[in-house]
Amino acid sequence: MVNIHPMWNNFPKIQALLLECLELILEKITIENKEIEKKVTDLIESQGKLLRPAYFLLFSRLGNPSPEAHEKIIATAASTEVLHLATLIHDDIIDESKMRRGIETVQSKYGKDVAVYTGDLLLAVYFDLLVDAKASTEILKLNTLSMKRVLMGEINQMTNAYNTEITYENYLKSIKGKTAQLFEVSCYEGAYFGECEPEILEQSRSIGQNIGIAFQMIDDILDYTQTSEVLSKPVLHDVKQGIYTLPLILGIESDNAFLPLLKKGEDLSDDDLAALVSLLHDNDCIERARDIAKKYIDKALASIEQLPAHPEKEMLYSLTETLLTREF
Amino acid sequence: MVNIHPMWNNFPKIQALLLECLELILEKITIENKEIEKKVTDLIESQGKLLRPAYFLLFSRLGNPSPEAHEKIIATAASTEVLHLATLIHDDIIDESKMRRGIETVQSKYGKDVAVYTGDLLLAVYFDLLVDAKASTEILKLNTLSMKRVLMGEINQMTNAYNTEITYENYLKSIKGKTAQLFEVSCYEGAYFGECEPEILEQSRSIGQNIGIAFQMIDDILDYTQTSEVLSKPVLHDVKQGIYTLPLILGIESDNAFLPLLKKGEDLSDDDLAALVSLLHDNDCIERARDIAKKYIDKALASIEQLPAHPEKEMLYSLTETLLTREF
Repeated sequence: MVNIHPMWNNFPKIQALLLECLELILEKITIENKEIEKKVTDLIESQGKLLRPAYFLLFSRLGNPSPEAHEKIIATAASTEVLHLATLIHDDIIDESKMRRGIETVQSKYGKDVAVYTGDLLLAVYFDLLVDAKASTEILKLNTLSMKRVLMGEINQMTNAYNTEITYENYLKSIKGKTAQLFEVSCYEGAYFGECEPEILEQSRSIGQNIGIAFQMIDDILDYTQTSEVLSKPVLHDVKQGIYTLPLILGIESDNAFLPLLKKGEDLSDDDLAALVSLLHDNDCIERARDIAKKYIDKALASIEQLPAHPEKEMLYSLTETLLTREF
Repeated sequence: MVNIHPMWNNFPKIQALLLECLELILEKITIENKEIEKKVTDLIESQGKLLRPAYFLLFSRLGNPSPEAHEKIIATAASTEVLHLATLIHDDIIDESKMRRGIETVQSKYGKDVAVYTGDLLLAVYFDLLVDAKASTEILKLNTLSMKRVLMGEINQMTNAYNTEITYENYLKSIKGKTAQLFEVSCYEGAYFGECEPEILEQSRSIGQNIGIAFQMIDDILDYTQTSEVLSKPVLHDVKQGIYTLPLILGIESDNAFLPLLKKGEDLSDDDLAALVSLLHDNDCIERARDIAKKYIDKALASIEQLPAHPEKEMLYSLTETLLTREF
């Protein structure tokens, strides 16, 4: 029996569907070297929040899909999580991260060589799930373009590493690609495969984008406010890698005291990091970042509220509201 | 005007089609950061041998495709080269290679972070080309499974790094995946999109596999016999990375003198490498490896000979024959 994040205990219908997705993903991952296979399946079973397939499923339930569509829905919802997992594994190579979701990363355990190809393998599984779902040319095209945008977001972030002149606009561009794009596609595909009314289909993309933007902003805030135990991954890792996210960008814009610290680049000591966090609090950067994230959540919530009445709408609304107050 | 490897000067029809493939690939690669885009397009224009699309095109010409199939043929042929390029970029991360095709690698110039995502981006382009070709579910499925096999071959090779008990069978398994699989699919897809007779379609896969196996064996032999200037990439790199290929496997099997050298792992000095090459010659390993490669080429040539008569068959035969004697 696959483990699933406890946040889904309150949403038993979605929980059951997410379990189906996870079981399908596990079935698709067969690596001859069983140690490596176990590493990948451990990551899959390590209780990620599964937000992308969850949003897919929530949107699909706003429609009226035929029972025959069930398999397609599970396969396509699963594909969104697999693309996410592939980018996580490749991210960890770049970050040289040792921990992810409380377990040792593929690259830390087996080296970057195995991690590169394991991530690639998940990209093959991602497309394989879409092919199994007999996705139309339109949906396949959406996915290939979307994958390109995700990667462009990552590349944009990388090419701005250690850039102390990075702007809010540039940050927004990166997160629209690397995170929001996949939320956008997940919501849209859910509405599409769920055969939703045109009004829902039309709104799904911008709702997904706003949720994705807010989700990433909150992730970036938690990196400065939470302990690594709560997040099950190292904190304050981005800044050492030269990835300057929302709270820090607000800080750089408002206080010159950040610059001498950031000029140290990779050599930031623990004391420097503590000084940086302290400066962020002095400048209300955490609060201000939270306010910006809240604007995106509020936009998403307002659009959800305006969707046609449907018994499952409440769940979509309440999950989205919860995201803003999450602590993990 | 795109540059193309001079080997195609003798095959003007194929040369013209390969140029169309390259132009399509270049059109598909758009990266906002123009420096990185240039790095990728330089790799594409760096006169690779383009053997995968070439075999695709040669097989397609053994059929009788309708003029409307032309665009599909170019897009799918191009996809085989793009998958190959993606694996090259990811290989270079693992090898930490500085040079490829005579130019600096993506990872050496921009770091492994950019190289991971640039390779991923080419994987997105690979699928995008297949979607543009409106490939059937059967062909899409073939590609996703094939990509998995390529990666399994790479992972198999990685997990055998520094394994001095590696067998010929294990080596064969790795190269069937990492190299021969893509030759096999290229030949088959060429026959498929070229609407070839069933007999050709049926033979295309095993012809492609035998060519791919021989091609990789010859590549591995050249690594021990050629200079890095001729190959436009570093030589004797594999052995330092613990990748033991055909000549060395034959050596290990026949002479215990290899083991003390190989036990040095990453710390092999230039003198050690020279001693290793000398041991290979003492044991006739290069000649014996060439004989094995020749068997695979001969198998492929015999099958090509038995294909139904066709004016373009000669070109397929002569190109395949040339592969065995290549020096680059």
